[in-house]
Amino acid sequence: MTLSITAEYLSCSIKMEADNEAKGKVSDQAMQNPQALAALQDKLDSVSHSASIMDSLPKSVKRRVNALRNLQVNSTHIEAKFYKEVHELERKYSALYQPLFDKRRKVVSGEVEPTDEECEWQSDHEDEAALAEDLKKKAAIEEKTEDANEEKPKGIPEFWLTIFRSVDMLSDMLQEHDEPILKHLHDIKVIFSGPDQPMSFTLEFHFEPNEYFTNTVLTKVYKMKSEPDADDPFSFEGPEIIDCEGCEIDWQKGKDVTVKTIKKKQKHKGRGTARVITKQVPNDSFFNFFNPIKVSPDKELDEDSEYTLATDFEIGHFFRERIVPRAVLYFTGEALEDDESFEEEELDEGEEEDQDDEEEEEEEEEGDSKTGDPQPAECKQQ
Amino acid sequence: MTLSITAEYLSCSIKMEADNEAKGKVSDQAMQNPQALAALQDKLDSVSHSASIMDSLPKSVKRRVNALRNLQVNSTHIEAKFYKEVHELERKYSALYQPLFDKRRKVVSGEVEPTDEECEWQSDHEDEAALAEDLKKKAAIEEKTEDANEEKPKGIPEFWLTIFRSVDMLSDMLQEHDEPILKHLHDIKVIFSGPDQPMSFTLEFHFEPNEYFTNTVLTKVYKMKSEPDADDPFSFEGPEIIDCEGCEIDWQKGKDVTVKTIKKKQKHKGRGTARVITKQVPNDSFFNFFNPIKVSPDKELDEDSEYTLATDFEIGHFFRERIVPRAVLYFTGEALEDDESFEEEELDEGEEEDQDDEEEEEEEEEGDSKTGDPQPAECKQQ
Repeated sequence: MTLSITAEYLSCSIKMEADNEAKGKVSDQAMQNPQALAALQDKLDSVSHSASIMDSLPKSVKRRVNALRNLQVNSTHIEAKFYKEVHELERKYSALYQPLFDKRRKVVSGEVEPTDEECEWQSDHEDEAALAEDLKKKAAIEEKTEDANEEKPKGIPEFWLTIFRSVDMLSDMLQEHDEPILKHLHDIKVIFSGPDQPMSFTLEFHFEPNEYFTNTVLTKVYKMKSEPDADDPFSFEGPEIIDCEGCEIDWQKGKDVTVKTIKKKQKHKGRGTARVITKQVPNDSFFNFFNPIKVSPDKELDEDSEYTLATDFEIGHFFRERIVPRAVLYFTGEALEDDESFEEEELDEGEEEDQDDEEEEEEEEEGDSKTGDPQPAECKQQ
Repeated sequence: MTLSITAEYLSCSIKMEADNEAKGKVSDQAMQNPQALAALQDKLDSVSHSASIMDSLPKSVKRRVNALRNLQVNSTHIEAKFYKEVHELERKYSALYQPLFDKRRKVVSGEVEPTDEECEWQSDHEDEAALAEDLKKKAAIEEKTEDANEEKPKGIPEFWLTIFRSVDMLSDMLQEHDEPILKHLHDIKVIFSGPDQPMSFTLEFHFEPNEYFTNTVLTKVYKMKSEPDADDPFSFEGPEIIDCEGCEIDWQKGKDVTVKTIKKKQKHKGRGTARVITKQVPNDSFFNFFNPIKVSPDKELDEDSEYTLATDFEIGHFFRERIVPRAVLYFTGEALEDDESFEEEELDEGEEEDQDDEEEEEEEEEGDSKTGDPQPAECKQQ
């Protein structure tokens, strides 16, 4: 029997509400976008459903329903405690998984050579039985080639880089100039906040010594909230990522792939004289992941930044929930078919070019970093 | 800041794999159905991705990857223990919620009249302030009407029935003849299996004494599995509903809405003589929920039955996760807008009529139960 419902305790959903929508204002965009309009209509229908049910009730019944609503608010506070205990459980299990992850790291880096018994994999026997004789011969030749090769591969080369290349959400961020750096990535860890700290998790990217930066660990902290909103307690659905923080990367001189140096020829319109200036501008790179948009309570984010940040939160959640716990399955591709639930939204092609009306200018690139393809919004520094 | 990712620990996803697909056989239907074909292609692409990565690796690396795969199998067993502990947590919290649910039941049935303080609801003040004067007058008139009315409403009449009417997944099952019965539904409870029992949960539907059946509680048990499959350990994503069991309803004579009596006129083709027979046939009703399709390890389910059962599992999960914990929000409609994640799949219009080639027949209805509209597949007995 293969028919079943899964209770996914650890799935991921994005909650993204523009403040104006929450306050009931209709944006021009919504009025022009049939889908947005339909969503809004649903919201209004639902509000009016609630209003109409409540309005149609005799006063004595209405007050009893309000009593139930107050019980429901109490319920959300119990729920918040439940989620805190689940977080504690995750901390506890994190320690149980750690020996397996440590072993994984050692096999990946070549520090440990697994025994034959540890490498026994059932389906290999089936595969071999099914292999046609000529394929077997080919395999034999390949093996010989390997034996003849002087430099034997150490561990599992490009383990994490292969994962970055295979997972759409990550390959969208990946630039050609990031790849040689990510070859030095040897481990990614998830560290949960302690019992008395505000709820958060930290992604640690561990690098072997390399020519690009002096850090051995790059970190990204995701701060979470697991309390119902006083204003809107019923929207509480468990812990939410509310903010994130990157880290300083100590780039070696000329190795910073997150910036590029451009030359600008400036012509003075009036006098016709020309001069060349150089300028550092942001460059597309996975490493912008460690320099995310700052959330501030005073400042409203524009739509692009909000989208960029939502994507960042989703990526952080994906590292925590899928990539780190199941890295080998992303390496082999076995996990890729299961990820339809982590759908990515279509990106609108944004305006990519700066407008600079003051001066005519030509840009030429300079320095080590190559120009990447135009990148989706989420990995641009804004 | 209203931008956030929710880690939903308790969301729901359906996993439905036909056995033949799992075994890699391509059904004729899949070959004719572009969507099924595309899904299959994705699966094959993914398999071939995995195959090609593994094939391209030197033998020494391939065996290390297999060592990681074995570590990953160990990981799924730790994960299974984690989910068992989450289930324990749910049991524990179930006891903490219970006093709130008991209070809810008493308010709904009218057993307890909440105090003014308990009925204080913040937004009412805002609403009142916003109310135009004429609306206020109208409200005043309505209140007077109520006061004049001799029979004051007891508790919150039709509380659960209103929820059944409002939630699409339930209203799809609801027939007109079910409604007077569901007016007697006073509570729905979720009971989790004990620590030493196989994982399951039971929905208890508590009825006040009524003229339809003698049971005071109708039950539906959902059996779960929280172990990785030995054959396919990497597909493990936490507990799954794998089976369910209903209960016998002791209907009062002539009150069983799940059957209808029909008269059949039979004409003997050869002799031309006619006779009338009566026959009991299944009738659409919510109460078929308590008589689900039996799962048997020997018998392969047909596609319709599989779909019906998957819908049943989804409804059970929905009762457990949403309706029971948040009933008042479904009553007022406040929860309805949040349920986009519980999407229902489009139903194909199935063949609704029996084919009976032996005899020409006309059907006439007889007995208490009214004919409902043609129902979606999930509430038909098969």
